[in-house]
Amino acid sequence: MTAAARPLDVRKKDTLTRLAQDVDAWVSTASPDGTPYLMPLSFLWTDGTLLLSTARTNPTGRNLLANPVVQLTLGEVRDVIHVAGTVEVVEPTDTEGEAFAAKAGFDPRPLANYPFFRVTPTKIQAWREVNELKNRVLFENGRWLD
Amino acid sequence: MTAAARPLDVRKKDTLTRLAQDVDAWVSTASPDGTPYLMPLSFLWTDGTLLLSTARTNPTGRNLLANPVVQLTLGEVRDVIHVAGTVEVVEPTDTEGEAFAAKAGFDPRPLANYPFFRVTPTKIQAWREVNELKNRVLFENGRWLD
Repeated sequence: MTAAARPLDVRKKDTLTRLAQDVDAWVSTASPDGTPYLMPLSFLWTDGTLLLSTARTNPTGRNLLANPVVQLTLGEVRDVIHVAGTVEVVEPTDTEGEAFAAKAGFDPRPLANYPFFRVTPTKIQAWREVNELKNRVLFENGRWLD
Repeated sequence: MTAAARPLDVRKKDTLTRLAQDVDAWVSTASPDGTPYLMPLSFLWTDGTLLLSTARTNPTGRNLLANPVVQLTLGEVRDVIHVAGTVEVVEPTDTEGEAFAAKAGFDPRPLANYPFFRVTPTKIQAWREVNELKNRVLFENGRWLD
């Protein structure tokens, strides 16, 4: 039996909890010529953005450097948190760098080849089953809906 | 503690089991101009291919019609099964159509707007943790490695 659809405020709370606690995301990028690429990466939710790091020579890194748009999802296919965003290469703050290293289990900061990518969400959606497809947009145009 | 890396034959067996039993995959596509799109879809593993169906007006459907390449993954970020493939619109056999409907929980066949997309794998990889990144390619150039 499918659970009742969660109201918006519960979805937002659940989503913020998962963004804070989940370690890995599915990261979907594309090359400029339109070849899709999908890979899991660790992330840190910080200041309303997601911080990622991967080698600039990996397909995900190459794609993000050439084509800085991304879609990423957390966790389960029946508990979807879906983020669309734009990406820029950044220097993390010390606090962010340490938090990222602690969460991801590796510290990219000493590695010359591992830039940090900051994903600024343009849209955040959350749904579990078909009955939650309605009202799945939680964040859009720079703000959380209420 | 991380489990020991699985040998190739065990990974292949585990992968075929998951392809047969899992219901949903993360499907990563791109528009011809390189906008990535990520969405979960139900799939049927049949005859060495994956059968998907989604509305031709959905972003995934539009992308696959215009740019028939895909990457998809099954399940968990720490038990990755990763398929890269090429896509064509097909008419499923009766057996496939019935098996798809039973597994996915909906039958696209009577729906004028829901084509079937057959994903022919070009590469299949499987890994759990970092210690399995080596030897993660199981299928390439049209055949399972041994």
